[in-house]
Amino acid sequence: MKENFFTLRTVMWDEGRVKMIDQTLLPGRFVYRSFARWEEVADAIRRLVVRGAPAIGVAAAMGIATAAVNSKATTRAQLQLELERAASGLRATRPTAVNLFWGIDRVMAVASRSKDVEGAREAVVQEVLKMADEDVEACKRLGRFGADLVEDGDTVITQCNAGALATVGYGTALGVIRAASEQGKCVKVIVPETRPALQGSRLTAFELSADGFSCTIVSDTAVGSMMQSGKVDLAIVGADRVTKDGYVFNKIGTYQVAVLAKRHEIPFYPAAPTSSFDLKRTHDQVTIEERPADEVVKIRGRRIAPKGVPVANPAFDMTPPELVTAIVTDQGIIKSPVQDNISTVIR
Amino acid sequence: MKENFFTLRTVMWDEGRVKMIDQTLLPGRFVYRSFARWEEVADAIRRLVVRGAPAIGVAAAMGIATAAVNSKATTRAQLQLELERAASGLRATRPTAVNLFWGIDRVMAVASRSKDVEGAREAVVQEVLKMADEDVEACKRLGRFGADLVEDGDTVITQCNAGALATVGYGTALGVIRAASEQGKCVKVIVPETRPALQGSRLTAFELSADGFSCTIVSDTAVGSMMQSGKVDLAIVGADRVTKDGYVFNKIGTYQVAVLAKRHEIPFYPAAPTSSFDLKRTHDQVTIEERPADEVVKIRGRRIAPKGVPVANPAFDMTPPELVTAIVTDQGIIKSPVQDNISTVIR
Repeated sequence: MKENFFTLRTVMWDEGRVKMIDQTLLPGRFVYRSFARWEEVADAIRRLVVRGAPAIGVAAAMGIATAAVNSKATTRAQLQLELERAASGLRATRPTAVNLFWGIDRVMAVASRSKDVEGAREAVVQEVLKMADEDVEACKRLGRFGADLVEDGDTVITQCNAGALATVGYGTALGVIRAASEQGKCVKVIVPETRPALQGSRLTAFELSADGFSCTIVSDTAVGSMMQSGKVDLAIVGADRVTKDGYVFNKIGTYQVAVLAKRHEIPFYPAAPTSSFDLKRTHDQVTIEERPADEVVKIRGRRIAPKGVPVANPAFDMTPPELVTAIVTDQGIIKSPVQDNISTVIR
Repeated sequence: MKENFFTLRTVMWDEGRVKMIDQTLLPGRFVYRSFARWEEVADAIRRLVVRGAPAIGVAAAMGIATAAVNSKATTRAQLQLELERAASGLRATRPTAVNLFWGIDRVMAVASRSKDVEGAREAVVQEVLKMADEDVEACKRLGRFGADLVEDGDTVITQCNAGALATVGYGTALGVIRAASEQGKCVKVIVPETRPALQGSRLTAFELSADGFSCTIVSDTAVGSMMQSGKVDLAIVGADRVTKDGYVFNKIGTYQVAVLAKRHEIPFYPAAPTSSFDLKRTHDQVTIEERPADEVVKIRGRRIAPKGVPVANPAFDMTPPELVTAIVTDQGIIKSPVQDNISTVIR
C-alpha cells in the first residue's frame, strides 16, 4: 500500500466535503480527513493540516463550496451573505500566499454570475472541481517547462515542500523533478528540514522517497556547507506569491538558499503556477505571516527552549529578483531580469 | 537558586574527578555530573554532555588528569603508557575543535617533564587547575577587547553556543556580550536555534536569559529574514579552529551567517581564545566531523522524518577569511585581512 505522489491528490471534493491528507500527521501516519463546513476548512488551513500555496487556494475555494451546498438559503441574497461570510473567514486564515485569495475570488466570481440559489450552488461545485483538475494540469505543464533546466545526474536543493503535498497533485518544484525523471533523467535531491514546521524532513522526504527518488535530509544550517563542498547543481523552490516587481515570497529560509546559491554560482529557480502571481502588488505591499512561538520552542509537542524567552517566527521571507535565475511557470520560463519579463509570460 | 553565568564554571576539577554541567539535559534540568575515569570523560565529550571548543579542551586535559590520579603505576614508564592510552582515546572523540588536541598536548608535555610517578601526577593536576583558571581569564580578556566593537543598543546575532557553557566560564562570543554589558552597554541578542543539536535555543537562550539579557530565539531559516528586515547590527560567533590561512571552522550554519552578514554589510566577528588557533595547518588539512543521522531525524528522541532516508550531518563548516571582519582574541583584535594579521596578534 505504497503512496505514489505522481498520481494521488492532496485535496479533493468528495460529495459535499473537502477531503484532504492530514499533513500534520506525516510522515508517521498517512490519513485523509473530510471537512464538511467552511469553518473546519479554515481551521485546517490555519493548523497546517493542508499547506502549500496552490493547495490552500483550492482548499479555500472548496471551503466556500461547502458553505454553498450546506446552505439552507431560499433566496440568492441570503446565499450571497453566507458565501461572503465564508469567504471572509477563509481569507483571514493566512495572509501571505496569494493563491488563497485567488481561489476565493475565483469561486466567488462564479457564484455571482448565477441568478438563483440552485444555479449558484451548482456553479460553485463545478468550478472547484475544475480548479482542482487545472491545478494538477498546471503543475504538469510547469514541470515539463522546468525539466529542460535539469540535466541528467543533477543534484537539486529545494526548501520546504513544494510537492504534490503543496498542490492538488504532482507539485511545483517537485513537479519539475518528477517531470525530469519522466524524461529519463536521474535527479538527486537535497532536502533541508525547514524549521520550524519541518516540511522538508516531514513532507518532502516522505513524498520523494515514496516515489523512489534519491534524497538526503540536511539541517537548515547545512545548506551553505552542501553548496561549499560542491554537492549542489541547482536550487528549485516553490513560491507563495510573486509580486509584479519580481520579488518571490516563499517559506522562511528560501532567501538564504538564494543568497548562498548566488555566492556559489548555482542557478536559483522558483517554480510557481499562474495562481501564485500577484500582478497587482509590489513587494512592499505583502504581509508576512508571523506564526506562534510554540512552533519554534516546541517540536512535536516537546519543549526545547527555556520558558519565557521571546521568539520571532516569520513564516515566509522575500527573495529579490536579482537573486532569481528564472521563474518556472505553467505558461513558460520567465527569464532574468524577471521583473521585466513577468508580463510577457503570465497572462 | 538562579544560575549566574558571569561566575559559574562549566568544567571543574573536583578532588580527582571532572565535574561538569550535563548539557544534554539543558534547558530542562541543570545538573552537575562527576566523571572519575578518562573513558567516562571521552564518552561525555562524544555525547555532548560537554561541548564547545575551549570547554572540551580543558575537559580532555582533566580526563588525562583522572588517568594520572587513578593510576596504580609504580614506574614512570608504566604511568606514561597509561597517560598515552588516555590521550589517544580522548583525541579520538571529536576531530574538528583544535582545543581538544591543544589541551591534551599541553598536559602531556607537562607530564613528560616529571621524572617520577608522584611528580608527574602532581604536575598534571596542577596544570589542569591552571588551564581552567586561564581559560576563564582568557575569555574575560577577549571579552574586553571585543566589547569595544559593540555599541550601546546594538543587536547581536550569534550561532550555536559560544558562551560560559562552551568554555570553563564567561564565554567567548557571549563573553564579548557580557563584557559590553559590564561596560554599561545595553545589548540584545538574536539566537538561531542551531539545528541539529539546538545549542542556540537550548543553551545560549538559557544562559543569556539566566543572566538577564534580552534575547530572541529564531529558527535557523530566519537568519536572513532578520538581517533583511534590519534587525541585526553585528554578528559574533565562536570558533572551533582558526587555521593559519585565516579560515574559521565553527558550528554548522556559521558560514551561512557570514555570507548573509556580508550581503547585508553587517560586521562578522569570530571570537576565539589562543587555544582555538591552529598555526600549523591550513583549511584543507582540517577534518569536519560527521555526526550521527539520528541528531537530524530525531529531536529529543522523537522521529520527525521518514525511516530510511539518508542524512548528511556535518557538525561544522568553514568560513573563508574574506567574510571575516575581524577576529576577537584574548591577545587583541585580528583585523582584516585576517590571514595576514594572525601572526602579529597570536604568539
